[in-house]
Formats: sequence, C-alpha cells, structure tokens
Amino acid sequence: MTIREQESVKGNDPDRTIISAALTGALTTRDQCEEIPYTPAEIAEDAAAAREAGAAIAHIHARTENGSPTFDTDVYREIHDEIRERTDIVINFSTGALDVPPEERIEYVEEVGPEIAALNMGSMNYAKYSDSRDEFVFDMVFENPFDEIRRFVTAMEEAGVRPELECFDTGHVGNTRPLLEQSELTHPLQFSLIMGVLGGIPATVENLAHQVRQLPASANWQVIGISRDQWPLVAAALSMGGNVRVGLEDNFYLPDGEMATNAELVAHAATLADSVGREPATPDEARAIMGLD
Amino acid sequence: MTIREQESVKGNDPDRTIISAALTGALTTRDQCEEIPYTPAEIAEDAAAAREAGAAIAHIHARTENGSPTFDTDVYREIHDEIRERTDIVINFSTGALDVPPEERIEYVEEVGPEIAALNMGSMNYAKYSDSRDEFVFDMVFENPFDEIRRFVTAMEEAGVRPELECFDTGHVGNTRPLLEQSELTHPLQFSLIMGVLGGIPATVENLAHQVRQLPASANWQVIGISRDQWPLVAAALSMGGNVRVGLEDNFYLPDGEMATNAELVAHAATLADSVGREPATPDEARAIMGLD
Amino acid sequence: MTIREQESVKGNDPDRTIISAALTGALTTRDQCEEIPYTPAEIAEDAAAAREAGAAIAHIHARTENGSPTFDTDVYREIHDEIRERTDIVINFSTGALDVPPEERIEYVEEVGPEIAALNMGSMNYAKYSDSRDEFVFDMVFENPFDEIRRFVTAMEEAGVRPELECFDTGHVGNTRPLLEQSELTHPLQFSLIMGVLGGIPATVENLAHQVRQLPASANWQVIGISRDQWPLVAAALSMGGNVRVGLEDNFYLPDGEMATNAELVAHAATLADSVGREPATPDEARAIMGLD
Amino acid sequence: MTIREQESVKGNDPDRTIISAALTGALTTRDQCEEIPYTPAEIAEDAAAAREAGAAIAHIHARTENGSPTFDTDVYREIHDEIRERTDIVINFSTGALDVPPEERIEYVEEVGPEIAALNMGSMNYAKYSDSRDEFVFDMVFENPFDEIRRFVTAMEEAGVRPELECFDTGHVGNTRPLLEQSELTHPLQFSLIMGVLGGIPATVENLAHQVRQLPASANWQVIGISRDQWPLVAAALSMGGNVRVGLEDNFYLPDGEMATNAELVAHAATLADSVGREPATPDEARAIMGLD
Ligand SMILES: [Zn+2]
Ligand SMILES: [Zn+2]
Ligand SMILES: [Zn+2]
Ligand SMILES: [Zn+2]
Repeated sequence: MTIREQESVKGNDPDRTIISAALTGALTTRDQCEEIPYTPAEIAEDAAAAREAGAAIAHIHARTENGSPTFDTDVYREIHDEIRERTDIVINFSTGALDVPPEERIEYVEEVGPEIAALNMGSMNYAKYSDSRDEFVFDMVFENPFDEIRRFVTAMEEAGVRPELECFDTGHVGNTRPLLEQSELTHPLQFSLIMGVLGGIPATVENLAHQVRQLPASANWQVIGISRDQWPLVAAALSMGGNVRVGLEDNFYLPDGEMATNAELVAHAATLADSVGREPATPDEARAIMGLD
Repeated sequence: MTIREQESVKGNDPDRTIISAALTGALTTRDQCEEIPYTPAEIAEDAAAAREAGAAIAHIHARTENGSPTFDTDVYREIHDEIRERTDIVINFSTGALDVPPEERIEYVEEVGPEIAALNMGSMNYAKYSDSRDEFVFDMVFENPFDEIRRFVTAMEEAGVRPELECFDTGHVGNTRPLLEQSELTHPLQFSLIMGVLGGIPATVENLAHQVRQLPASANWQVIGISRDQWPLVAAALSMGGNVRVGLEDNFYLPDGEMATNAELVAHAATLADSVGREPATPDEARAIMGLD
Repeated sequence: MTIREQESVKGNDPDRTIISAALTGALTTRDQCEEIPYTPAEIAEDAAAAREAGAAIAHIHARTENGSPTFDTDVYREIHDEIRERTDIVINFSTGALDVPPEERIEYVEEVGPEIAALNMGSMNYAKYSDSRDEFVFDMVFENPFDEIRRFVTAMEEAGVRPELECFDTGHVGNTRPLLEQSELTHPLQFSLIMGVLGGIPATVENLAHQVRQLPASANWQVIGISRDQWPLVAAALSMGGNVRVGLEDNFYLPDGEMATNAELVAHAATLADSVGREPATPDEARAIMGLD
Repeated sequence: MTIREQESVKGNDPDRTIISAALTGALTTRDQCEEIPYTPAEIAEDAAAAREAGAAIAHIHARTENGSPTFDTDVYREIHDEIRERTDIVINFSTGALDVPPEERIEYVEEVGPEIAALNMGSMNYAKYSDSRDEFVFDMVFENPFDEIRRFVTAMEEAGVRPELECFDTGHVGNTRPLLEQSELTHPLQFSLIMGVLGGIPATVENLAHQVRQLPASANWQVIGISRDQWPLVAAALSMGGNVRVGLEDNFYLPDGEMATNAELVAHAATLADSVGREPATPDEARAIMGLD
C-alpha cells in the first residue's frame, strides 16, 4: 500500500490528515471531567492549544457559564471572536440537539457565519446501554426529517457555511442522494462518519470501511468515535487515508485510561498520524484540501 | 460455490428457500392495484393461492371493507380463522404503523396469537422522493424507540409469538445486542432485511451482503425489496442462501412491468428459486427451518 | 435499487446484459457430455444456436476431430469463417492452456484476428478436490508470469484484438496496475471474474462483490462460474449489473440437474436476465457497450 | 467499539497483540541495510533485543557468514540454540524460497523442531515493479502446488511444529478447505495475511478486512506488510484485533523514513499497540493465545 493507492482516501489528502477537535459537546459536565471548557475565553484557549497540538478544525457547542448548553447567538459570536483573536483554526459550529426547535439551532450559524456547521443527515434511536448496570441509561429518538435537513442546507448555503454531513448509519449517507438530485447539496461533500452510538452503525473497522465505500470519490471524510474506544477507529481511519476527530465532546481518555485535556487528545491523534507516516494538516492546508474559500 | 459453503447462508436452509407473501400492506389501495385483498375472506383466498404458488408464510395487515388500515382484534381474528380454514401457511402479523399508539399495534397479536409478528428494530426517516416530479412525495420520522421495542418483545414472548426483526439499516441489526444481553431476545433470531426505503439502507447487492455479514451464524434471514426493483434483490438473496418476501405490499409488478396478483408474484419468486437450484419450502418445512413449534 | 444506481454496474449496461457462450473448452470430452462441439462446423452451428438463444459472444477453444485441443491456426481460421457465415456473434478466442508454449497460444490470435481474446492475468494453483473420493483429482500450477502477460498484451494490441482479462483471484485484478502505468493496457478494460477454481478465489456472492469493487469505474465485467453451481453466481451477477458466461466449457447442467446443450444453457441465462428485469444484448449492442469497433 | 466486539478479532486476544519480528529474510543484504543479522549469534542477539522491545515471536531465515541464504540444518540448529540461551521468544522458521527443492526446505524444520514454521499456501506471480524506473525489477512464479503443501503439513505435524499459513491472496485462504476436509490441517489455524506483493492481494485496509472475513472464527491471524508502507497496515490490524509482524525482512524504515534496527521496528509496533489500547503479549502469553504447548 501506499495510502494514496487506496480507494478509501476519496477526496482526502493521503499525506496530510485533518484533525478536528470537538472541544465541548453538550451532554457532559465538569463533574465528569474538569477540563471541559465552558466560557468563550476558555473555549478559545482550548482551540488555540488544540491548534498547537495539531488540530486544524475546532468543533464547538456553546455553553453558559454553569455549563448548560446554549444556542444564544451572542455567545456563539463571542466564541468566534475569542478564537479568531488567538488562532487561525477552522471554526465549526454544531447544530444538533435533542428537543430544541430547528430555528434556534440554525440562527447563530446564519448570524455568526462559521466556516463549517454540522448537519445531521437522518433520524435514529439515540440510546446508551450500560453493560455493568444491565440497563438503558437513556433512550431517545433523534429526529432529523428531510424537511429540516433541507432547511438547514439552504440556510447554510445562503450564509456561505459548508455543511458537514453527520452520518450515523448507512442510510444517512444514502440520504444525500435526493439532495444532490435537487442540487441542494453540491460537491465536494464533507462527511463525518459517527460510529458507535447505540441506534446507529456499530463501531467496527469493517463498518468504517463499509461507510467509506458509499461515499463519492471526491468526498472528504472523517471518523468520529465515541468513548475511549475511539482510538482504534482513529488508527484505522488514519490508515485508510481518513481525517479524524477527537476531543472532550467524544472521549475524555487517552488509550491508557488517563483523563486528558483537549490538547492532549489532539496530540495523541497527531502522534498516531506520524506513526503511520502521515502529518497533521495546518488550518490553511485543511482549507485547501476541503475547498473552503 | 455450493450455496451451502457460503457464510451468508447463516441459519437458513441452503436447499430450500422460505417465500413470504406480503398480501396487503397498509399504504396502497385498489385505486392503485385492483388485486389488493381487503376483507378477511379475500385475504385468506390470497393466502391459499400464494401457498399453492410456493409461499410458506403470509404476512398480513388488516383492512376495513373500504381498504383503510385497521388494528381491530376481531378483524385480525377473522383473518386468522379464514386462513386456517383454507391452508397450512405460517401466519405473520404486522405490528408497524405510523402514528398509531403501540398498545393498539400489539393487542391483536397478543389476543389472536399468530406464529410470527413483525417487530421494527429502530427509528429512521421514512420518505419517498420522486425523480420525475423532482420532489419529496412524503417525509416522516418512523419512530421505534427501545422502550417500545422492548415492550413488543416482551408481549410477543408472553404470547408465544416469534418476533421477526425488521431491520431497515445497519444500526437496526446492532440494536439487537442490548436485548440479547438482557436475554429479552433469544436465539435463533429471525431477520428481515428491508432495503430501499429512503431514510434506510439503499438497495444494492453490496449492501445486502453487508447486512447479512452482521447477523449471528444461527440467524434466519430474508430480504424485502420495495417496488419492481425488488427482483434483483430477490435473485441475489436466493443466490446467497437467503429467504425472500414478495407480494402486493411491496411491489405490484413482474419484472416485465406487468401488474400481477399475489399468487403470480410468489410464482415468479418460486421460478427464480428453481433457476438457481433451490426449492420453495412448504409451511411445515419452514417451521422446521425456523424452529417454530 | 434500480440496477443503474449500484456502483457494481461499472461500465456495463444496467438494462442489457451481455451473455457469453463458452462453447467447447479444452478439458472435457464427449464421453462426459455428448453435446460438446468439436469440428469448426459443429462449433459454428452451436455459435449460431447460442446467438439465437441470447448470446452476444462466443468464446472458443479449437479441437481436433477426435476432440483433443489444438492450437492450429488453420483450424481457428476455419472456425472463424464458419461462424461468420452463419451469424454476427462476437468471436472470442481462448489463449490459455497448461504446458503449451506462449508463442503457440498467441499465433492463431495474431493470424486470425478475433474481436476478443482471453488473457490470463496471473499464476495460481489449479486443482480439483473430490469430496466424495476424498482426494485431489488434479493439482497443477497455472503459470502466467508478467513477461508472458505483457507479450500477449502487446501481440493483441498490434493485432487489434481486445484482451479479456481473466482474473481468478484478487491479486490478478491488481496485476493490471503496472500494465496500466506502462500504458500497455488502456481503458476501457474488460474483465472476467472466474470463481470457484480450487487455487483461486472461492465462489461466493460476497467474493464476487469484492472482486467487482476492485475494478475501475469504466470497466466491463462478467462472472464465470464453474460447474452446476454457476447458476447462483449468474443470478447474483445479473442483479449487480454484470455480464455472464455460460456454456459447456464451464458447466453441462441446468439448475435441475438435466444435462443441456450450449443453446439451452444460454436460454436459461437469458430467462434469468428477464427475471430480474434485464434483457440480453445483441452482438451489435454488446460491441457498443464494450467499445469494440 | 471495543476491539472485543469486532468479528475481526477471531481467535486473537483483543487486549494483547502478538508481535512477530522477522529478523533476517533471505533477499536483502547489508549493502542495503547494515543492521541485518547474518550469523547465529547476531540473529540471537537481535531476537533477544526484539523480545525486550515487545516481540513474542522471532521469524528466521538462516544466512551464511557472507549473508547468502542457507538451508543447512546445522546453521538452523545453532541459531535455535543461541536464541534459547538468551531469551524465551517463540521460534519460527521460514520454509519458503524460490528454486530450492522442498526436501531441503523442510529438513531443518524436522531436525531442529522450532515451535512454528511458515507454510506457503498457494502459487502466484511474485514480482516487483518500479514506478520510478518504469520497469519490472523482478518477475517470477512462486510455485507452491498442493502436493508440496501437503507434504509440508505432514512433516510439520509429525515433528510437532505448528504451521503458520502464509496467504498472499484470497484463494490461498480458500486452499485450506480440502486440507481441513482431509484432516491434514486441524483447528486452531494460524494465518499470516501477506499484503502488497505484486502478484498477490494489494495492500489496502479494505483488502485486509476482506481477508480476515474469510478466516474461521477460532483462527489466529497477523498481517504482514512489505516496505515502509507496512505501518498503516499494522495500525489497521491492531485496530481490528489482529497480530502484526515487523522486522528487517519486511521493511527497513520507521514511518518517518529513518532506517532502523529490528528492535526499533518492534518498539514502534509496540507503541502503536499502546496507542490503540492494546499491549504486546509476552512469549508465554502468545503460546497460550495460540494454543502452542
Ligand atoms: Zn458536536
Ligand atoms: Zn408489512
Ligand atoms: Zn476458455
Ligand atoms: Zn520469511
């Protein structure tokens, strides 16, 4: 192999991998992990540290000062400006949440204009089962019907924001087809393959290969694994020519079980990239690879 | 190859394929296809004709006399009795519907006791896009959260009814895992792999092979394809050692575009089975293969 | 699915399948199957009958009058002319044999100029094991080193003959890479995926899907299955948008175990094509699909 | 994912990976890489250092003092004894070579009795193409017919040596079937999946997943990648629950392009294992995992 000879590279750069840092998330708190940034300044500090460690993209959920999720445009704007004061990292805003109306989840994207915003590409159960307690910890339906997806696509296009297509299952990749037919989505596409959420596609290398096979030849893609089990997926994705996402939204731990900071998680991903002969892309290299202006 | 040497056979019989006839469905009417049976007697006649043509299982949705869906226990009981007067076909009741509360969709199963009942294994978008009209014909979220799935599993187990696990995507197969851990589901499992609903896994032979790979070695499985495009999936499934479902719920047409009866659709599936060296199982053979008592 | 939406179609025509008839082969005799044609006239008669039954290509090994293989240019020329007197079928000559020097196996191709000639793309064990007798029936090394492959490619290109790339394993498909780099092979490529020879890739639908994945997007491909077990492979290939080869070289039997003629085998393949909504291509349609002049 | 939930683990240990060190090989010399050990003492020193770095198995080809390959029993015995004086690493002897008669390649195995010996499971082209020079560097047929394979299996069984099944393509895995039917091979099987030799299966993660799918559920397996491009395969295999081989036989370089010693290559593989949450097995742990007595 050279990585460049694999079909799985698709539109990615075989030599340079784009590392995203998912700095905050919405579901976890400092009770679980002290290192989660809450305020715009804390988030911006982590973005800058992640960039130093090798990240090219910061994926962001806003929080209030006590850590609860917020969809306030002013907070998102402040995060944006605090990051831009410190570093050139690509800024990516979440738009996903359970039980928050779509208009609230897109307004700050339209107003603040990040370079990228996440777009959930389908519905599914979103659950967690505890093997040790032998019970479901939570169990919801994550609803993203087509009319909402299309509304987000249109809003992002008008705002000049690149949609990052979040695919939790095989069908979610297939859901791009009618949007492409209607020219609502246009190439190149940027995919996140989320693996291991109960309700979506299970997290195996075999399934990752399957998801990647579905993608158009020009697509950019990254893998998103959940919990400490993300590291084997990161290693497999790097070997396939993929991009990767790490950060406290997805996982608190290094492979040895130590709790880490966002920058430490990014640094470990960068070391893994080196270990297979690839190098982390800088933000500007990432912009070029993804065709962001 | 002999079919028996393929991993994809799983718990099926390599020599005998089980043909299911989905006689009615819930969404289509006689305006679209005159041959759809409505009344218990009509459904039972079609069940008997399908059995003669090679079907071992009749999958049934009840209808009122004017064709609208009903969840009335008495109607289901009448269908059951009318079929049993005519033929030994295995009886399989649907439990799925959009916007009907779960208790209504399980009561007739508990009361009437078919041998098998369908169980939807996850949530997804359920949509239809028209290429010719360039628009979405419908667009819904098909909600099947875990608490509902578990409630259905429990009810079926208590009623001695075998659940048929309806999987519309890769994650739906994975959703069996926590239920197996909790011993709510027990082996052998019986899977239906539905392909080609917009929102779920696209209908390709590659994807069918992928779905089958996820299944436990002892599982029975059938493919369900939607619309006239089902025939290539039927042929591929037969070649992999799979069982198949046809009938007016899924598709009105023979491969040449002629509209057909339930019995004619079953007869074409039986011919395809012969064409690859397999034979349709009788209802009693099907019971033995699936371990139904 | 519509067949056209599957990646596996590659450069084939989703609506029209090209059926090849492998009329003679080299290894079997009339002691085993009375219907095998030996003389040029017999072969040409079978070619014409196969064409009537739906074949677009006749794949041919020459025989002497007593049935042993021959590489005599005059015999090949006579076969060619006898076929052309009777029918417009595309003519395809074998070039493979064990223990015959390469110059003998290419001369008649250069001299007679069929439209297509077979080209074995790699080496492997070529063996047969009898389960009933619990022993190896034969066990050879089928040698096709790169220098020989390249010599054949060059000779075919100079003679204006399209090479049909015979791939018995995954590596054989990969062997096209250096030849493409050197521009010895040029697109569109035409592949035969032979499955089920002991020593090469086992005959499963899963493996067929894997082989097809390796092919360039513009490639034509057909499946070749050996023995009566070919029928499930034929059905699967038709469902994936593939072309298919049948005929007495590969298999004597219909799926029900009846011994058949070449025309009957082709007719069964044509029926299978109809059964999944595809139609056999005529020779001229096949020429257009494959880009033969 | 946890690695243990992936089918691809097969009979391997999800937590502990077995690292093999291929210390010498037969084709390369100190002109190319100074660190290649030649003498029994040099080989034994490297085996001990590799063991310290994390290797559980030493795979060995004997050399004369000037570095040419030798099949001399005395040399193999001396290597064996020199290693045993220094370390408890599992000893694995090669049996493969081009143009050396089989009796010469098995005698030292029978006489010296390593714990494991390599067994090539099929024939193929064995070639190398230089992109820069645009020509074939070498081009041979690697012949391993069934009668030779069976002779080696029998000899190993009689000598109490575990065969390591070297599979260079999909068919080579399939070649185990008749040997299992004849009880010449017995479970558990130990596979090496060699990837990237021109003539065999190309080195992609997709192809690695395909090869692993073919293996019996109880099988042990490792990946062997050739040249500096091995590192992505090592990372992918570790993520799938696989074992891995590194060492100067396969590759001289760390991912950054630095030439390395055997121990340094092993150390990098061990770091990669840590990076995905797995640990190198000790020789005794490896013996337990593989069922070696
Ligand atoms: Zn997020
Ligand atoms: Zn139904
Ligand atoms: Zn031939
Ligand atoms: Zn070796």
